This record gives sequence, structure tokens and C-alpha cells, in this order.
Amino acid sequence: MAQPSYIPSVAPVFDWIDAHREEAVADLQRFCRQPSVAAQDWGMHDMAALVTDALTGLGATTQVTPTPGYAVVVGRFAGMTERRLAFYNHYDVQPPEPLDAWTSPPFAAEIRDGWLYARGVADNKGNLVARLWALRAWQATHHLLPCQVTFLIEGEEEIGSPHLGKFAAAHQDLVQADACLWEAGYRNAQGSLECYAGVKGILYVELQAKGAAHDLHSSYAPLAPNAAWRLVAALQSLRDSTGRVRIPHFYDAVRPPTPEEQALIARSPINISALLQQWQITHSVGGDGSPAQLTERLLYEPTCTICGIWGGYTGAGSKTVLPATVSAKIDFRLVPDQDPETILTNLQVYLQEQGFPDITVHTVADAAYPAQSLIDTPLMAALVRSARQVYQNEPLVLPRIAGTGPMYSLCQRFGIPAIGGAGVGYIGSRTHAPDEHIRLDDFFLGMKHIAALLAEFAQFP
Amino acid sequence: MAQPSYIPSVAPVFDWIDAHREEAVADLQRFCRQPSVAAQDWGMHDMAALVTDALTGLGATTQVTPTPGYAVVVGRFAGMTERRLAFYNHYDVQPPEPLDAWTSPPFAAEIRDGWLYARGVADNKGNLVARLWALRAWQATHHLLPCQVTFLIEGEEEIGSPHLGKFAAAHQDLVQADACLWEAGYRNAQGSLECYAGVKGILYVELQAKGAAHDLHSSYAPLAPNAAWRLVAALQSLRDSTGRVRIPHFYDAVRPPTPEEQALIARSPINISALLQQWQITHSVGGDGSPAQLTERLLYEPTCTICGIWGGYTGAGSKTVLPATVSAKIDFRLVPDQDPETILTNLQVYLQEQGFPDITVHTVADAAYPAQSLIDTPLMAALVRSARQVYQNEPLVLPRIAGTGPMYSLCQRFGIPAIGGAGVGYIGSRTHAPDEHIRLDDFFLGMKHIAALLAEFAQFP
Repeated sequence: MAQPSYIPSVAPVFDWIDAHREEAVADLQRFCRQPSVAAQDWGMHDMAALVTDALTGLGATTQVTPTPGYAVVVGRFAGMTERRLAFYNHYDVQPPEPLDAWTSPPFAAEIRDGWLYARGVADNKGNLVARLWALRAWQATHHLLPCQVTFLIEGEEEIGSPHLGKFAAAHQDLVQADACLWEAGYRNAQGSLECYAGVKGILYVELQAKGAAHDLHSSYAPLAPNAAWRLVAALQSLRDSTGRVRIPHFYDAVRPPTPEEQALIARSPINISALLQQWQITHSVGGDGSPAQLTERLLYEPTCTICGIWGGYTGAGSKTVLPATVSAKIDFRLVPDQDPETILTNLQVYLQEQGFPDITVHTVADAAYPAQSLIDTPLMAALVRSARQVYQNEPLVLPRIAGTGPMYSLCQRFGIPAIGGAGVGYIGSRTHAPDEHIRLDDFFLGMKHIAALLAEFAQFP
Repeated sequence: MAQPSYIPSVAPVFDWIDAHREEAVADLQRFCRQPSVAAQDWGMHDMAALVTDALTGLGATTQVTPTPGYAVVVGRFAGMTERRLAFYNHYDVQPPEPLDAWTSPPFAAEIRDGWLYARGVADNKGNLVARLWALRAWQATHHLLPCQVTFLIEGEEEIGSPHLGKFAAAHQDLVQADACLWEAGYRNAQGSLECYAGVKGILYVELQAKGAAHDLHSSYAPLAPNAAWRLVAALQSLRDSTGRVRIPHFYDAVRPPTPEEQALIARSPINISALLQQWQITHSVGGDGSPAQLTERLLYEPTCTICGIWGGYTGAGSKTVLPATVSAKIDFRLVPDQDPETILTNLQVYLQEQGFPDITVHTVADAAYPAQSLIDTPLMAALVRSARQVYQNEPLVLPRIAGTGPMYSLCQRFGIPAIGGAGVGYIGSRTHAPDEHIRLDDFFLGMKHIAALLAEFAQFP
């Protein structure tokens, strides 16, 4: 079938969106009020049902595929053309802790001064709901979508997508598309979207030190082991004083940016000073640099992060105890072509060699490979043109983001170009942190952006 | 008034104790079932009332003195002689956490196979109740006690006795005695009591590192600060690889053992290998050594201990976060003549100099000075003779213990010899740890020991 030369105007779609803001926000609150914390097995089944119901309600052919963890929900929509665009999204969210740092409860979806606060509203429910409502607006206005659309919505992104790869391999017919739009997007301090065609990988482990068989009175400290000192020493051995990871061969497979990638970075560096302002710090770790240098560091430097540490007495006041067990959660953010499995092995060998054979290492979430898609693709062109139209400014195009996702297992290995950057978050959204929020104006613009993107993608293959 | 040459026989007192075991155990359970966690402000008022009531019920002249924290309870008993013996005890206990590591709830006072399990039963309620029942047995048998007795019972020992020093200075008439029997005692693996005339001091602080203004998504790790890495580095700087504290002048005031003290240690070294067995480890930290060497290390080496550490995500599964705040509780066990205030100042200066001016230090509990009483005193002689009589073995006499207490502020500065070692615990009592317990047989022997000690102390000034 030839591509039709005419795709109806997006203007009435925008009008419909403007006329239905309140219903869309109420729907977003409904999504946000349903907890869905995969790490804590909290509300996941109900959330999957809510997503499935929303897709079916819009007329999608919906398939819910169970996994050993949480189901993958797929919804397929017909279109005016044979072009097929996939949307990758997830219905799980990060754990809401620490709860007492939230101004309103994380699943209350409270609106204050035009901002909606909820765990997951920026990552990723706001994007999911905006995409659903963009489709609804097209349907209400022109009946058919400009192109075919497949929603691929998993429930395990925040725990490392352990079953998505196997699902994709077993259901290539469902996954197949001309291109895939990734889950999230954030406006920077200048209001521009930041677009990308790659993600970092991740390895997430828990390290544990053991002392005596049980906690001891700390007066025994001259003779008895202390798991806290032991873990502190092991952790300190993982990085040098500049933060460089000391595990052998850690950097061997790191692919430096190509000249083309460096040109993109030089043209559209991330506004790092705005980030520092958000974080209320004056200097970045690892030293200062030009915006392009700092952007390159953010996107191309693999890291080792202590995400959490705990052990011994952590209550009020004082307790004099030698902790028997102390643990830390560690993530390694990896860049192409680092292999998480090789790094896990090297970590274990390294701890042995450094004199820490007693420190246990186990993986908490499944690892993700880093991915780098082609950058110069029709979807990226459509993303940029539609962003100019809706946001009235120039989006940034960068080779990749510093975040992680299953881009390799869902797209790259099947040759599907994956592009991200369309979304309803902004630089201050506090993703993964207390008081996560979006600005509702970004939510409405995000809907329009997706509506315009469908038309652009359908018209310019 | 001259000392009477005749003190009645302790044999009927022992018989009375044997005949009243069940009531005494029920009373001990009553004490243990009343939570009294000073660090958590839990049950303290009710516990003080229970103690006061018990003293009054035995006919003591009782005085309850409020402090800015918890009241000091003093009970004074008349005696057949003018000799006055003070008992120092405390009615507060350590926090019971981690709760899930207890076989029975910490305030259930469950008895299993002749052992009583409860937070505080070894430290210090078992000793307190055994002393009360020893007095009751004397009264029931001979009406008057052999000597005058003053109970000095505070409620803040486990949080560093912040108000006991001021109380003692303001009430020297109440505190004054010919000698003071310290709070606790533990039988070693051979069944011998370990007697001492000194305690270590303590400085307890909380260190806190701060990163960004709030927790951040860990993908920002190449540029954003991580409070966990920061605290780990600061902690690691506090000690060298052998555990030696690196704070300048830390060891300057450490008084090595005298030849007399070394002789005591050589004659009665602590059974360290039994301790290691209890702890289920094969080697002590800091290297192996002879029993005397290890005993000297335990008693004369000041230490720096991480009692607890926490920050970032510590829940189930994975969460990728850069922690904004990470904290550690640290105790320094000090030996004569280390001064906790000097060491606190030196710690702060050291962290500054090591490049950690951002790490905050604040004291959690009030510091205690280390103390060393005279060893060769009438009370020590009475303690040893009565122990031989009751336990049918030779008690160990050591210059001091590795534990801490307000011996300096309550006794040493007023010239009152203080001696410890009489008590109902044993090497396996799990003081400060889950499943703290005593053997009930030790409870009954402990009562008899105090009964015999009163007679010995009255007869041989």
C-alpha cells in the first residue's frame, strides 16, 4: 500500500486537547493514585489491569502476556498508513521512600499551583497517559490515527526489566515496528526537549559484610570484628579518590564518542549549570569543565554508585553495638560496549584479590546492556519537527542519555531504531526522589507533541 | 560506734533464698516486662516508679531526684554496723532492635530451659533484682542488714549517664560510702566471676554527610555528589588498616598498665578463646596473641567503632538513587587518662584537615571519663572471699573492664573505691544484643553472693 499524500491537519486535534484538559488530568490522577512499585510487589496487578482497560477502551487490540514477574501489556492501533510506530512505556514506578520527605503522600496525586505531585508521574505515568490521550484526541477528531501504533508497556522497568528481553524474543511480531519512541522526556531549563538515541546499561548488586554471629557489645571492639568497618573498607577500595572505578578492565570496553557524536554534544550541550542549581551545589564532582565537556562526562562516563547503606543501630539516641551485618546497594551505570556480566565477574575477583573474600556480592535486579541506536533516522526528524511546532523552540539532540532502559533487548538487537525525548517531565521533576512532580502545562504540551509526531512520522518515512 | 565482733551466720539467709526462688523469678519477670529504653523515651517513668516502690517495700528511706532526663532513685538501708556499702545500678536498658532477631519478644521475659530472655535482664535488671532479694533475705532472716546499704539507681546509663555527675556533686551526702559495688558481673566460661576496679570512658558521636539538596536519580552520578561515598571516605580516614585511630594525639594520654596491673592480667587473663567461640569467629581482629596479651589489648586499647550506618534506599529490591544524606553513629571507647572533650575537638580538626569540612559531627550521648579505682581494697577482698564461698571457685581479679560507666563521676572524683564483678550474667548473655538472657541458676547464686558479701564487708573493714 502506498503512503497517502494527505494526512489531516493536527490543528483540530490540538483544539480537542485544549477542550479536554480537565478529563485528562483526572485520568492522570487515577493512574498516579494506583501504587505500582515492582520492587515492593505493591499494586502491580491492579495497575496492569488499569492500563489494559485504558488501551481496550481506546479500541486497541490488546494482549497481556504474563512473565515470571509482571505482565507485559501490548496494545495495537490501526492507522491511515502502513507506517508503524512503537511506544515503549512502563507502568511500574520507583519505591516512594523516604516517605517523610514528601510534602503530600506519594500516591495522593495532589495538585498544587498547577503542578501534580506523585511517585511515577514524571517517570513514567505522565508520559503514558499523555500518549493515550494524544491517541484519543486523534480518534475523536479524525477517527483513524495517521500511522499504526503499538504500545509496549512493561511492569519491570524500575527493577531492571528482567523479563522484557525474553518476551521480545518470543514475540517479535508484536515488537516489530519501523521505529520505537522511548518512554520519557524532560524539558531543560530553557524549555527545550532533550532527544537521544541511546541509554546506559546497569548492573545492580548488594554487598554484605558479616562480623560475629550476632551484634556484640561494642566494648569488645579491640578483639571482635565489626561488619561496618569491613564494608566501609571494601567500598572504599572500589573507587580511587577521583571516583574512578578500580575494578580491573572496568574501562576496557568503553567506546569513546565518535566525531559525529562529539559534534552533537558541542552543538547542544546539556545545561549543566541549571542542573547544579537544581541540586543546590556549586561544583560538579570530578571537577569543572565546559558545558560540552560536562555533557560528555555525564553521557560517556560509567559510574559506581552507593544507592543505599545500612547496618547496626540506626534508631534514636545511642546504642553501643558492633554490627554483625552491614549491607550496601550499589549500581554500576555502564556505557557501550561494557558487558554487565563481565563486570560482575571482575568485581567478585577484585574483592577477593583486595582481601575481601568475606564480602558477599549478589545481584538485586537483572542487568541491562547499554545501547546506542542510529541517531539520524526518520523518527528523530519527526520528533524534532513536531517539537519545534509545539514547544516553539529547538529541541536538543544528543547521542544518548545518562539513564538506563532495555533499549538493547527491545530494539537494538532487532535493528529497530529507538529514539527518546518526547515526554512531560522537566529538569526539576525530581525523578526517583521525594516530591516527584510534573507541571500540568507540560502534560498538555506533551499530548500535542505526540499528536503532531504521529502526523510527521506518517508523512515523512 | 565500734564494729560488732559478731555478724550472724549467712547460712539461714541462703536457705531462705532457696525457699523463695519462684517469687524472686516472678519479680524479675515483672521488672523485665516493663520496657525502659532511655534512648527511645520508652516506659522510663513507670520503671522508676517500680524501682522506688520495691525499695520502699523493703523499708528503705527512698529519695527520687528528678534530672533534666530521668530520675535518680536512692534507697538507704540501716545496718548492724556503721560500714556503708553503695550499690550502683541502673533501671534503663539498651534499645531492643533489631526486633526480628529475637526468638521471643524482648519484653516478654520468657523462660526457656532455665534461661530467662529479656532486654536488660543481664544488663542490669537481673543484678538489681538479685541485690534487692539478697537484702530481703537478710531482713527476713536477721531483721537488720550486716552493714548499711545505699542503692544509687539511675535511668540513663545506656545513654551515657548525662546527668549523674551533676546529681552526685549536688548530693554528696547521699552518694558517700566506704565503697561502691558496681552494677554488673558476668561468669566466664569456667564459671568464675571477673572482678575489676575500673571502666573505660566513651565518646559517642554522629557523623553526617550531605550531597545534593535531595536524593537524585543515580544516572547523574558522573556529576552529582553522593553522600554515601563521601561518608565512606571520611569513615575510612578515621583508622588505618590495622584499626589504629588516625586522629592526632588520640593515644597521647593513654596510660599503659603498671607492673602490678600486668601481674594481675598475667595471673587471671580473660578466656578470650571462649569469647571467640561465642562470637563464632576463629581469630580476633588485630592479630592473635597469648591470653594475657589479648586481655591487655581488650582492657587497655581505646577504640573507634561504627555502631550504625544508614542512608539512601535500604528497602527491598533495587532503587537507583544518589543519597542526599548518609549518617553513622560512632563510639570511641577511651582509657585513662584520655579526655573525651579533647578527642572530640581533635576529631573535628582532623576531619577538616583531611578534606572533610562538610562532614558534620555532633555528640549523641554525653561523654564519660574513663576511671581506674584502687584495686587492693576491703571491698575487693570481701568480693573475692564471698565469691569463693558461693561459686566454689576462684574469681578473676583484673584492673578494669572494657565496658563503660560513670565510675569517675560517681566515685573516683570523691575518693570512693569502686569495685565491680558481682552479677548474674555470664559470657553468653548477649548483652546489648538480641536474645539477651541469664541462666536462672546464676540469678540465685548472685543473690547468695550479695548476701555473703554484706557479711564479709561488715566484718573486715
